[in-house]
Amino acid sequence: MTHTPGISRPPKDMIEALQEIGAATIAGTLGHMGISHPHIVGPVSWNKGKSIVGPALTLQFMPKREDLYGEGEYTDPEKQLHRHVLYHVQEGDVVVVDARGDMTSGVFGDMMSTYFKGRGGAGMVVDGCLRDYPNLKKLDLPLWLRGWTPAFHTQTGLMPFAVNVPIACGGVTVIPGDIIVADDDGAVVLPVALAPKVIETAKVHHEWEDFSRMKLLQGAPLQRYYPLHQDAFPEYEAWKAGRPGSSG
Amino acid sequence: MTHTPGISRPPKDMIEALQEIGAATIAGTLGHMGISHPHIVGPVSWNKGKSIVGPALTLQFMPKREDLYGEGEYTDPEKQLHRHVLYHVQEGDVVVVDARGDMTSGVFGDMMSTYFKGRGGAGMVVDGCLRDYPNLKKLDLPLWLRGWTPAFHTQTGLMPFAVNVPIACGGVTVIPGDIIVADDDGAVVLPVALAPKVIETAKVHHEWEDFSRMKLLQGAPLQRYYPLHQDAFPEYEAWKAGRPGSSG
Amino acid sequence: MTHTPGISRPPKDMIEALQEIGAATIAGTLGHMGISHPHIVGPVSWNKGKSIVGPALTLQFMPKREDLYGEGEYTDPEKQLHRHVLYHVQEGDVVVVDARGDMTSGVFGDMMSTYFKGRGGAGMVVDGCLRDYPNLKKLDLPLWLRGWTPAFHTQTGLMPFAVNVPIACGGVTVIPGDIIVADDDGAVVLPVALAPKVIETAKVHHEWEDFSRMKLLQGAPLQRYYPLHQDAFPEYEAWKAGRPGSSG
Amino acid sequence: MTHTPGISRPPKDMIEALQEIGAATIAGTLGHMGISHPHIVGPVSWNKGKSIVGPALTLQFMPKREDLYGEGEYTDPEKQLHRHVLYHVQEGDVVVVDARGDMTSGVFGDMMSTYFKGRGGAGMVVDGCLRDYPNLKKLDLPLWLRGWTPAFHTQTGLMPFAVNVPIACGGVTVIPGDIIVADDDGAVVLPVALAPKVIETAKVHHEWEDFSRMKLLQGAPLQRYYPLHQDAFPEYEAWKAGRPGSSG
Amino acid sequence: MTHTPGISRPPKDMIEALQEIGAATIAGTLGHMGISHPHIVGPVSWNKGKSIVGPALTLQFMPKREDLYGEGEYTDPEKQLHRHVLYHVQEGDVVVVDARGDMTSGVFGDMMSTYFKGRGGAGMVVDGCLRDYPNLKKLDLPLWLRGWTPAFHTQTGLMPFAVNVPIACGGVTVIPGDIIVADDDGAVVLPVALAPKVIETAKVHHEWEDFSRMKLLQGAPLQRYYPLHQDAFPEYEAWKAGRPGSSG
Amino acid sequence: MTHTPGISRPPKDMIEALQEIGAATIAGTLGHMGISHPHIVGPVSWNKGKSIVGPALTLQFMPKREDLYGEGEYTDPEKQLHRHVLYHVQEGDVVVVDARGDMTSGVFGDMMSTYFKGRGGAGMVVDGCLRDYPNLKKLDLPLWLRGWTPAFHTQTGLMPFAVNVPIACGGVTVIPGDIIVADDDGAVVLPVALAPKVIETAKVHHEWEDFSRMKLLQGAPLQRYYPLHQDAFPEYEAWKAGRPGSSG
Repeated sequence: MTHTPGISRPPKDMIEALQEIGAATIAGTLGHMGISHPHIVGPVSWNKGKSIVGPALTLQFMPKREDLYGEGEYTDPEKQLHRHVLYHVQEGDVVVVDARGDMTSGVFGDMMSTYFKGRGGAGMVVDGCLRDYPNLKKLDLPLWLRGWTPAFHTQTGLMPFAVNVPIACGGVTVIPGDIIVADDDGAVVLPVALAPKVIETAKVHHEWEDFSRMKLLQGAPLQRYYPLHQDAFPEYEAWKAGRPGSSG
Repeated sequence: MTHTPGISRPPKDMIEALQEIGAATIAGTLGHMGISHPHIVGPVSWNKGKSIVGPALTLQFMPKREDLYGEGEYTDPEKQLHRHVLYHVQEGDVVVVDARGDMTSGVFGDMMSTYFKGRGGAGMVVDGCLRDYPNLKKLDLPLWLRGWTPAFHTQTGLMPFAVNVPIACGGVTVIPGDIIVADDDGAVVLPVALAPKVIETAKVHHEWEDFSRMKLLQGAPLQRYYPLHQDAFPEYEAWKAGRPGSSG
Repeated sequence: MTHTPGISRPPKDMIEALQEIGAATIAGTLGHMGISHPHIVGPVSWNKGKSIVGPALTLQFMPKREDLYGEGEYTDPEKQLHRHVLYHVQEGDVVVVDARGDMTSGVFGDMMSTYFKGRGGAGMVVDGCLRDYPNLKKLDLPLWLRGWTPAFHTQTGLMPFAVNVPIACGGVTVIPGDIIVADDDGAVVLPVALAPKVIETAKVHHEWEDFSRMKLLQGAPLQRYYPLHQDAFPEYEAWKAGRPGSSG
Repeated sequence: MTHTPGISRPPKDMIEALQEIGAATIAGTLGHMGISHPHIVGPVSWNKGKSIVGPALTLQFMPKREDLYGEGEYTDPEKQLHRHVLYHVQEGDVVVVDARGDMTSGVFGDMMSTYFKGRGGAGMVVDGCLRDYPNLKKLDLPLWLRGWTPAFHTQTGLMPFAVNVPIACGGVTVIPGDIIVADDDGAVVLPVALAPKVIETAKVHHEWEDFSRMKLLQGAPLQRYYPLHQDAFPEYEAWKAGRPGSSG
Repeated sequence: MTHTPGISRPPKDMIEALQEIGAATIAGTLGHMGISHPHIVGPVSWNKGKSIVGPALTLQFMPKREDLYGEGEYTDPEKQLHRHVLYHVQEGDVVVVDARGDMTSGVFGDMMSTYFKGRGGAGMVVDGCLRDYPNLKKLDLPLWLRGWTPAFHTQTGLMPFAVNVPIACGGVTVIPGDIIVADDDGAVVLPVALAPKVIETAKVHHEWEDFSRMKLLQGAPLQRYYPLHQDAFPEYEAWKAGRPGSSG
Repeated sequence: MTHTPGISRPPKDMIEALQEIGAATIAGTLGHMGISHPHIVGPVSWNKGKSIVGPALTLQFMPKREDLYGEGEYTDPEKQLHRHVLYHVQEGDVVVVDARGDMTSGVFGDMMSTYFKGRGGAGMVVDGCLRDYPNLKKLDLPLWLRGWTPAFHTQTGLMPFAVNVPIACGGVTVIPGDIIVADDDGAVVLPVALAPKVIETAKVHHEWEDFSRMKLLQGAPLQRYYPLHQDAFPEYEAWKAGRPGSSG
């Protein structure tokens, strides 16, 4: 029997706290903390407007070697390793696949993805392709991919090789259990250990941003309103006081 | 006068039988029959949701050589070889173009494409670009392309070279008359001689797939429902019997 | 204090005259005038259906060198050179950015783009990425980009280096003040000195094109209707005479 | 029996006249005659110092399709099309191969190349690889290639498809019988019809070049000596008169 | 303390038997046995004429993540994982490195390579670069690389991640202990389990090959001499009998 | 008359001090000083064994625009901007060219390079190609290039645009006057302001390196000898004392 390891999941409240923060803020904050490349480059959103946060289950593909990937794979479905990453899916999980950027191998199709959705998976990030878009799109899954292909994953040059091991996906090392934050900007890898500081930094809400945005849209000077110049604080305070619901 | 060869078209019923089968099923079936790479990689659907099946008319571009592509091409339109592939278009044909993956040459524009539509062409697959998207999109043609450019096809590095000869398009050899099946997964080349077996294989409908899909979406075990395990057949039979319209 | 040069803008009526002409016609006309590569290859429209014409303000990125891009950039916003190109924006201007095709650096985000819109900017052409798509898309700006990233522009390998200098963007040399024409076909660079001739050429309206388009859509022969053959002129004249509003 | 067409060869004296002229002079002259891209980009010299001129025999590879390239190819060597291009080799011929830039397919090995040498072949230009370098190098053949691979040509994604048809090799269209000139700068395609003018132009020998080269190497001003300024002609004439063997 | 696993080595006589066979024969034989891609594409010989056979020790690089690759790596050399693969080197071993094709990271320099040579390492295959070529070349090591860089391996985007785990190198999956055969054609991965059959197949020596080679070099027909036609066997037998040292 | 700016050159003794240090040491030292990417990636040594240090004169190419690069360039050589960078050459200077990685444009040929050598130029670094290798190689110039082409530089897509301005070459920003250090590892950009610290760091000669190298080559443990472990210092001291010429 094939056994593959599980993952440790971050606490629910950490995931919830991150849900209010977009990928841009997280990547930018990580950048200032010294993490230069948290962005998985290559896979892009195929379901615009969707935003997800969740722990990474990982699936690693390797170049196909016919001596390692035999006939049995077809006759006994349980030997097909890409199924096994799905067996681990819990509510809110994100499946992250290193498909080596290949444009000719469809990692999952309609039925596998239906199962993924049935298990409550949050979304998938694949450095490569899925297959059967005409049917798959009915599931309305959040997906970050390089594209689509009608071919199946071992039809050309890849074979599934390992589940829940560290992988490189789109130029970023992903450790199983890392938090994935993905929206229309792309997918970002947030190490669990850094999440508390990222959440804290994001909390320091620049209350004046709404005010500045309004002024900038009116053509007001960038130098005065972004970042908000000290000379403009009284103006901002007055605006804030005049807003409905303000206690001033 | 320029003469270019025509093509042999597959029987209408073959085309019709294929229309019920998607590119993913065809590519997958071909894969199991030993055809590894039927997928034209590069051109993607620019008219999502469209699906076509039809015989390939081919147009080959070659690197421009100024001694071979002279002034006369401009003064006498009949010397422009890309027009000639369109002269062959019959109801349901697919024009397949090897434009060498070039992103700076627009193979056809608004007027040519209008003529193609007027002739009843099913769609086009171009390993390269078309031009004049703002006008062309009004035709609502099924198109698989790498993209768009405002430049015309001989403005930069290409010249039309041959019509209805074997071409390589997106990494696949296309023989004039081959069947093209294209949908949101991409375009697939199906040799006419293999079509009967592909159709036959696709007929073996897995009736339990709808049942399994329903169960998987409810979070039921993949091991039991895909492929349907023998232990689950009684459950499936009971479900089938209970459906409205079932004879049980 | 950082000083960056301004640009000379073409006359308003030139811009207006160009607004009726699409990128395909302009690129094609330039091609016949000997300008082979006016098309900025790489950046594509991220706001389909938008069409803009305006003078180019340019921003040049260079590979980051830590000795040239110091801490001060962060503490004093005025040292951040990408802000300065925005200070020059007037109604109808187009910001063109050489971001070296980089997919990991977000040139502008939400606030900068809001300011750009507030100033009346027509649109942006970036050989690279912007960041914060979830917020930025609310501005409904005409944008030609390679894509999106959550990372900021100096997080990885680039630094802003110069404003309103000649740049190479998508394989085309752009001189500050050049006219940018962009639509769903892509962005084209039109040198001001060549604009009068392009406008004049485009004025030579092929009145028969509407007639031909109608005929072609009915499946009529391309040889007769495009370009309109002399034999078909009487037919065209009769059609024209019969149209409502015709003086015949 | 497989039949493949032969080629027309240019007259011997044309080949001889070209042998004194390098690829750089020929490419430059063609450039001034309006042929922008005569250089086969990709294949580089693997036998430095060799220089060849000869007519092109062409071999075209296409993406492998298992239904088109069957078992018989192995059992009956005569069905292997790459052999057939070699059957046409006469003294001084150049075999030019479109192997689609593939780095995993070895077009010819040791024995085929021995036969090529035995027939008097001048050299090969391959947009791809040969195999068995350890043995092949003993033949000391002039070769322009992308590299080497131990795999044979149909082991991965290619199949030989046609002999002595027009091909694209390294971005240049090669018509069978075109003259190939290759040296350490690379391989250039010279259409036979343009050869007389190229030879004539090259004959206009800049006699002062040797003089200028000597002066430049001494650090003399480029403005005066290249091209030779009219002010410097007396100096040159004096130098020429003083050389041993001069009649002055 | 860092512990990394060792490898199982194939029997000495297997290595010896393979030493008489070149990479081309091995790759070709594997191809006929169904292994399509045994060739590590990318790394090329930097020490022409060298030929090696030996078991693979593997080193895996991953995209650098600053939270995973900390300061300690520099202060405690034993934490530097690339050293550890060298600790395993025994006489005849081949170090194979997945450096992700990176051209900016020098995996090993002068001192490490000196240690590798001191331990009796047979050679290295790196999908990436080494550094300090001016000093390293004095060691005269057999090396297959993409190139050289003066930068060290963690200076840019990589970090050493694992030792003696399965890696992908140049598009081939390499399992620790696989046999590497490398010469001027490149490096090939030979699974130990397939080695006996490869050796056996190679033993079937085509004795007539020397005869055929001689004939082909004289311009004799390929059809008769390669493969040797049955009609030509008497001629071959006569030649063989006449050679000095023949018992005939 | 065309005027182009000159450069400031670093003091001679700085250049001399750097001549004893290789590119690997300089790149590594810069890496530890926070300069991640000093290595010009792409151009490689075409004259193995050569090593140079000198200030950068820069030449910038841009995509050709026919309206900006007119006929006059050919009739008046002084308008050809690539000549002007050579006018600045003094003894020991390095010409660095951003030719945009183009493989079809030969930046300089035989005569220009002869002049360069005559002026005492140290070498050239070109992110692109030179032309006329058969003649140029006779000059034995130190050259770092992507390759060679027989075509001249404006034959295809480039035009010389500026002299002694900041350029990007192989992914590194080069400011005119920056120090270039190049050897078989490649070319490195050393900012003048950082040179003193780099020289000082390199002075801290690890005297034990020769000892360690000898031990490692004998198969001694890396842990003990590199870096030299404190336990091994007595052994090293004894060895040093015993060497001929030692005062001990």
